[in-house]
Parts: sequence; C-alpha cells; structure tokens
Amino acid sequence: MSKNEATTIEIGETSKESKGKAPLLGAAHVEHARAGYKRGVSIFDLVLRISAATAALAATVTMGTTEQTLPFFTQFFQFQASYDDLPSFTFFVIAMSIATGYLVLSVPFSIVCIARPLLTAPRLLLILCDTLTLTLTTSAAASSAAIVYLAHNGNSDANWLAICQQFGDFCRRTSGAVVASFVAVALLIFMVVLSALGLRKH
Amino acid sequence: MSKNEATTIEIGETSKESKGKAPLLGAAHVEHARAGYKRGVSIFDLVLRISAATAALAATVTMGTTEQTLPFFTQFFQFQASYDDLPSFTFFVIAMSIATGYLVLSVPFSIVCIARPLLTAPRLLLILCDTLTLTLTTSAAASSAAIVYLAHNGNSDANWLAICQQFGDFCRRTSGAVVASFVAVALLIFMVVLSALGLRKH
Repeated sequence: MSKNEATTIEIGETSKESKGKAPLLGAAHVEHARAGYKRGVSIFDLVLRISAATAALAATVTMGTTEQTLPFFTQFFQFQASYDDLPSFTFFVIAMSIATGYLVLSVPFSIVCIARPLLTAPRLLLILCDTLTLTLTTSAAASSAAIVYLAHNGNSDANWLAICQQFGDFCRRTSGAVVASFVAVALLIFMVVLSALGLRKH
Repeated sequence: MSKNEATTIEIGETSKESKGKAPLLGAAHVEHARAGYKRGVSIFDLVLRISAATAALAATVTMGTTEQTLPFFTQFFQFQASYDDLPSFTFFVIAMSIATGYLVLSVPFSIVCIARPLLTAPRLLLILCDTLTLTLTTSAAASSAAIVYLAHNGNSDANWLAICQQFGDFCRRTSGAVVASFVAVALLIFMVVLSALGLRKH
C-alpha cells in the first residue's frame, strides 16, 4: 500500500509540473513586460530631468548675471539695477541654484531606476524630492513673476511706478529668466506624474 | 488502464489541492494586509484633503473680503484699498477658489480609494490633479507673498514705498490669507507624497 501511494504522488507531481509550466512562463513574461514598461518610464524621466536641469541652470545664470547701469548719472548717484536690489530676485537665484543642484545630483538615482526597474525605494525618494523641488521652483518663479509684472506695469493704486522704461534691458533679461523657470516647473510636473505612473502596479 | 489513470489523476489533484491550501491562505493574508495598509493611507489622505480645503477656503474668504477705507479723504479722492487693486491678489483669489473647489470635489474620489483600496486608477487621477493644484496654490501663495513683502517693506532701489503704514488693517488681513495658503501648500505636498506611498507595491 505504501508503495502504491508513493507512485501515485509521483505521478501527481509530474502532472502538476507539466500543468504549471505554461502559467510559470506567462508570469515571467508579465514580469519582463512590466520591467520593460518601468524602464521606459525611467528613461523618459531621465530625459525630462536633464532638460529641467538645463532650464533651471539657464534661469539661474540669466537672473544672476543681470545688471544694467544707465548711461547717465548725477553728481552723487549712478543709476544701476542688478538682481540683488529686489529680494524676490535674490530668492529666485538662491532657489533656482538649489533646484539645479538637486536635479543634477538626482541623475544617478534616475539611472539606478533604469538599471533596476522593479525597485521602488529610489522611485519613492525621487517623487518625494521632486515634489519639494517643484514647490521651491514654483514659488521662486511666481514671486519673481509678480515683481516683473509690477516692474513692467506699475500699480497706480499703490503708487508704485513702472521701472521698465528706464531699465529696459534689465526687465527683458529678468522676464527671460522667469520664463525659463516656468519651463522647469512644467518639466517637474511631468516628472512627478511620470514617477507616479512608474510606481503603480502594471 | 484508462480507469487506473483516471484514479491516479484524481488523487494527484487532491494532493495538489491540499498542498496548495497553505500558500493560498498566505496570499490572501498578504492581500488583506496590503488592502489594510492602503485603506489607512487613504483615510489619512481624506483627513488631509478636508484640512487643505478648509485652509484654502479660509485664505480665499480672508483675501476676498479684505477692504479698508481710510477715515480721511480729500475733495476728489477717498483712500481705499481692496484686493482687486493689485493683480497678484486678484490671481490669489481666483486660484485659491479653484483649489478650494477642486479639493471639495475630490473628496468622493478619496472615499472611493477607502472603499476599494486596491484600485489604482482613482489614485493616479488624484495624484495628477493634486500635483496641478499644488502648483497653482504655490504660485498664488508666492506671488502674493512677494507683494505683501513689498507692501510691508517697500523697495528703495525701485522707489516703491511701503503702504502698510497707511493701510495697516489691509496688510494684516492679506498676510493672514498668505499664511493660510502656505498651510494649504504644505498639506498638498503631504497628500502627493502619501498618494505615492499608496500607489507602490507593498
């Protein structure tokens, strides 16, 4: 009787194995497809990250090097405008340098996500830091945009006069920096959403 | 022979079934634990969402009802300040109303995430819209903060004078609205990160 049972179980095992082969292969296939999907998301993330770093760097450099000295001066005073005359522009330069630094330093993590597409820890770290950088970049861009708007248009109710008639070149360059920072904001939004897509179960 | 084979297979099936029971129970247990974890995340998300909606509503109402008329006037002019004198404050009111509306309307989706914790589609929708709302709220808060700072301190380089000596009550109320909007920004950051935690495989 014991010999009979052993035989039966052996046959049972074999039949189970042959039955199990197809789903096992299917699971490996699904796993492979998921890794491919996540790798594709990570490659796209890396491209966006490098573009955002470039935009942030351009914004920082443009704002940081802006300086205009008017060609006329009085006996006691020379008219000059640079970014550190306005606190919002100083904040802009500091915040955008931090964002540029973070985006460059996060490139290795993005490469880890390409090499090991099924790991979730680096993705979670990236989505957390990306969200914080998005907030920092947006606040820098928006506060500078408010000041640039005021410099262009002035405000009659508060009796603040537009300064762009005198400092035209200064205004054009700061506007350019603000536009570049909004490009970085848009790219960061895409990166956060893309990381969320990479995190979900496929 | 055919009868023998049939018997063998039947026994094989039974032994497979009895072997498979323990892992199956284990899988159900893991699934249950995962559903519990995701449900907890969703409940916390709902609490944060209602708090953020309250903060955004408070910011909107505070800014929108701010109006100050000075007790003295000249023959032709009465000194009055309200939020629509400054374009940044108008943007603040519009953006924060949109954010409040979105946060209130997204509560049902958050409840769906609690009821069906393993669904990913509503979570992805929420993380996408939350990120956009975060950007909108941050830009409104930052641009108004820049203007509030200017109203408090003025800027001698651009020859913009502080207006808070005259319009003290107006400045206090707008500062309060800006603080409330930054509270909403902080809660929205938590919500985006929490949604990312809810999306990942456990």
